[in-house]
Amino acid sequence: MPSPQIALYALPGIPEVQAGDDVAQLILDALARAQLTLHDGDVVVVTHKIVSKAEGCVLHLSAVQPSPQAVALAALTDKDPRHVEVILRQSRSIVRQHTGLLIAETQHGWICANAGVDRSNVAGPDGETVLTLPADPDASARAIRAGLMAATYTDIAVIISDTHGRAWRLGTVNVALGVAGMLPIADLRGQPDRDGYVLRVTTVARADELAAAAGLVSGQAAESLPVVLIRGADYPRGEGHATDMQRPAEKDMFR
Amino acid sequence: MPSPQIALYALPGIPEVQAGDDVAQLILDALARAQLTLHDGDVVVVTHKIVSKAEGCVLHLSAVQPSPQAVALAALTDKDPRHVEVILRQSRSIVRQHTGLLIAETQHGWICANAGVDRSNVAGPDGETVLTLPADPDASARAIRAGLMAATYTDIAVIISDTHGRAWRLGTVNVALGVAGMLPIADLRGQPDRDGYVLRVTTVARADELAAAAGLVSGQAAESLPVVLIRGADYPRGEGHATDMQRPAEKDMFR
Repeated sequence: MPSPQIALYALPGIPEVQAGDDVAQLILDALARAQLTLHDGDVVVVTHKIVSKAEGCVLHLSAVQPSPQAVALAALTDKDPRHVEVILRQSRSIVRQHTGLLIAETQHGWICANAGVDRSNVAGPDGETVLTLPADPDASARAIRAGLMAATYTDIAVIISDTHGRAWRLGTVNVALGVAGMLPIADLRGQPDRDGYVLRVTTVARADELAAAAGLVSGQAAESLPVVLIRGADYPRGEGHATDMQRPAEKDMFR
Repeated sequence: MPSPQIALYALPGIPEVQAGDDVAQLILDALARAQLTLHDGDVVVVTHKIVSKAEGCVLHLSAVQPSPQAVALAALTDKDPRHVEVILRQSRSIVRQHTGLLIAETQHGWICANAGVDRSNVAGPDGETVLTLPADPDASARAIRAGLMAATYTDIAVIISDTHGRAWRLGTVNVALGVAGMLPIADLRGQPDRDGYVLRVTTVARADELAAAAGLVSGQAAESLPVVLIRGADYPRGEGHATDMQRPAEKDMFR
């Protein structure tokens, strides 16, 4: 039985995260429990939810006063005006609106449903608590990477992931909102393919492929596993930013 | 050292595929060379290129006579009129057009660049040969699955993948255009999350996650590995179709 090219390991037992928690330390503890050690070239994929919780990106809707704009948009889309208020605060612009749905460009430049403001999987069974995205997911990834590397003396990459819907295709996939220790895009332009024909445009969203692969393990329900270790994946090293994957507005035909 | 939850294996040594080749047999030969045996629950991800080649979906542009519509659209987009002619034949409609770029809805209902008509990585170093998508990728997946199961007595899933660009995000990821032995979408709606809050809309594009994960292994250049075995991934069993992932036009805000 040969070794796999790539192996994905879940890290079970990560506790409910509180504001102020040290995510890198939670991951180190989980690695130890799972009897795993980090190796050079490993990728640690962290769902943004635990990063957002650790960074205190939690709001109770009872504390949110909706603006007149939020009230009007909530009426048009049949959503909670307080939820819409939080979405607007997190957004540069609203890209599309429809009953029950707002597609927004976040302050970071990500285009996604509800500007990433999530009402599910947040502590508080009344459903009145919302979680926003980290203020700077690339910075969050860098901080977690620094914590992991200081403790393990390894050169690894860290990805902060979120679950996104897509244009044209049903169902969600995980994508990368923050990276550290890697370039998010692998540039294969100019390399010959097996027939000697030079590939003209082949830039692969490696960070998104890694986030999607981690989604196979992490699930989204009761058995939620917010951290996945990926071993053996080839990725371009460097000081990249997930925001390098944002398509410039002037080159985007779908806004 | 614990076992990984999910393992990805490349199958090296698959030869250049010719029209009429039996893809299932090529995969069985590659599994034997790699000393791998299929297990129940395995997923075999096959890039569409070798399926298209086996099914004879290859055209030489010298044999293509562009229509007046293709000539006009080629002039508008600065593309080869013969390439545009093949794209139009493969399309229900053109969704967006721009210099060098056509986003089309294929006859199967997929929205992608150039209707999936590919000029790179096709036999013929003159760059004059194009490859089209399989006529029915779900049927292609079913045929490959039947061939693999008959030889191995295992219950597996097969995915036919392609490399797509996305709205809003740079870089490509692999997605599923055909599936067999699985439902492409895992429906987690109604399951409580860890806080007891019931998830309202959580349908995960499992087939696309699997295709994206396989993209980590398969690469796209000289070392191209067109078949990847994924072991340990949870997916919904059943007689699904990748086309179940197509967002209905009337519910799609990005056409």
